[in-house]
Amino acid sequence: MGSSHERRTPLASHQSTLRVRYPECDPMGVAHHATYPIWFEIGRTEMLRASGGNYRDLEATGVFLAVVRLEVRYRRPARYDDELRLTTELLVAGPVKIEHSYRLFRGDELLAEGGTTLACLDRDGRARALPESLVLG
Amino acid sequence: MGSSHERRTPLASHQSTLRVRYPECDPMGVAHHATYPIWFEIGRTEMLRASGGNYRDLEATGVFLAVVRLEVRYRRPARYDDELRLTTELLVAGPVKIEHSYRLFRGDELLAEGGTTLACLDRDGRARALPESLVLG
Amino acid sequence: MGSSHERRTPLASHQSTLRVRYPECDPMGVAHHATYPIWFEIGRTEMLRASGGNYRDLEATGVFLAVVRLEVRYRRPARYDDELRLTTELLVAGPVKIEHSYRLFRGDELLAEGGTTLACLDRDGRARALPESLVLG
Amino acid sequence: MGSSHERRTPLASHQSTLRVRYPECDPMGVAHHATYPIWFEIGRTEMLRASGGNYRDLEATGVFLAVVRLEVRYRRPARYDDELRLTTELLVAGPVKIEHSYRLFRGDELLAEGGTTLACLDRDGRARALPESLVLG
Repeated sequence: MGSSHERRTPLASHQSTLRVRYPECDPMGVAHHATYPIWFEIGRTEMLRASGGNYRDLEATGVFLAVVRLEVRYRRPARYDDELRLTTELLVAGPVKIEHSYRLFRGDELLAEGGTTLACLDRDGRARALPESLVLG
Repeated sequence: MGSSHERRTPLASHQSTLRVRYPECDPMGVAHHATYPIWFEIGRTEMLRASGGNYRDLEATGVFLAVVRLEVRYRRPARYDDELRLTTELLVAGPVKIEHSYRLFRGDELLAEGGTTLACLDRDGRARALPESLVLG
Repeated sequence: MGSSHERRTPLASHQSTLRVRYPECDPMGVAHHATYPIWFEIGRTEMLRASGGNYRDLEATGVFLAVVRLEVRYRRPARYDDELRLTTELLVAGPVKIEHSYRLFRGDELLAEGGTTLACLDRDGRARALPESLVLG
Repeated sequence: MGSSHERRTPLASHQSTLRVRYPECDPMGVAHHATYPIWFEIGRTEMLRASGGNYRDLEATGVFLAVVRLEVRYRRPARYDDELRLTTELLVAGPVKIEHSYRLFRGDELLAEGGTTLACLDRDGRARALPESLVLG
């Protein structure tokens, strides 16, 4: 996603599955919109793990990835106990930012699309270059 | 906020104050990015209340406002126990959607900007026209 | 768990695995204590699913299970990205309440113990008898 | 609250007001039970602030208060947008633990009662004595 809306060729792609939790849903009976960025973060974490990395280890070395941009388009509601499939794509990786896009499905039905930009910070919250291991493309 | 990034003249504006809660913060020691849409929703709720309306009463009459677009730009972190000031602006109100923009401050420091689009739904989740009382401009 | 602290023979038992999410953790770097009841609820949901039931279907028939008692003893912190094992035990099932106990482990290390009592409500929030399908023992 | 259920004379008492947020409510239309410990924590924070202390400053000096016991009895549901009154009482303060009790009201109606025990930890998560400033009674 993004202002230009074209689909870029991803550097990497990952599929996660998620089960909608009861307290993630609101009185409308559907997943609250603030839950989606939490799911997107799980997609990023699992994509990094699948490639042999680990975000917790990264933080232990003083590398913090902070979300500086979030965009979500909500197409159809997700309901309690739905099993969802999240596609996470890495679009840009370095030298100073990381961009991902997300598509959330229930079966073949597209529920939401999103995008994030991450900046790399040191332990004191100052911008720093991405570690070599995360730079791609 | 939005694709064109110009500042539009708001139909209405509201100021809320918020205190950052401990569980809203993450291991980086700052408010997690998924908390901001929850704050924006409080801004909308309080703005409607200040104008004599009430979202709970609205739902009781079968009118549901669903977020279909969310955008956030995070400029600086909010920290635990910070007292924040949220400016909510109503940009578009009707006949089929509502647009708000948000700016979050700590003192005079801009921490984040955001925007949402709401669609009006009936009890069964189908699109419906906004009730007259919400159409402005 | 409970006031008498003896271990009762469970009517049923279930094992779930959980991965600690980033926003479930707080500035101390550990899972916030309010996250545990959310995990316990997942344990109940998965235990019901494993026995062929489904909480969402139950709600669709007008049966709601409300937590009326919650107790947790926190022994050791859970950390971001930890893989946890949750043992859920059904202790009492009917005619008017359901009691579960919980033990949360990381490997063989006991992190927390808990207990809940659920009451059965109808669509209007009034107490009602448990449906036959849920009464055991 | 507690196993003996007698009401002890509190060392200190504090009143907070809370507004129930939309995403704190679940598909039953009531505040989810995992929200209550978050409210209790706000009660503790505001009680400390009212007495001239500050939990954030405490953490900055290496003093962390970890919840080791949580108990809640839920009497009646809290609903979206309800304004609630929380009474927080300090029952025990030192030398190694802090105990609070909580009562949550909507008007004069008691919605829930709770209790917590906090242990004092250093930056590495080891038990330490409470700082003098927190020991009372």
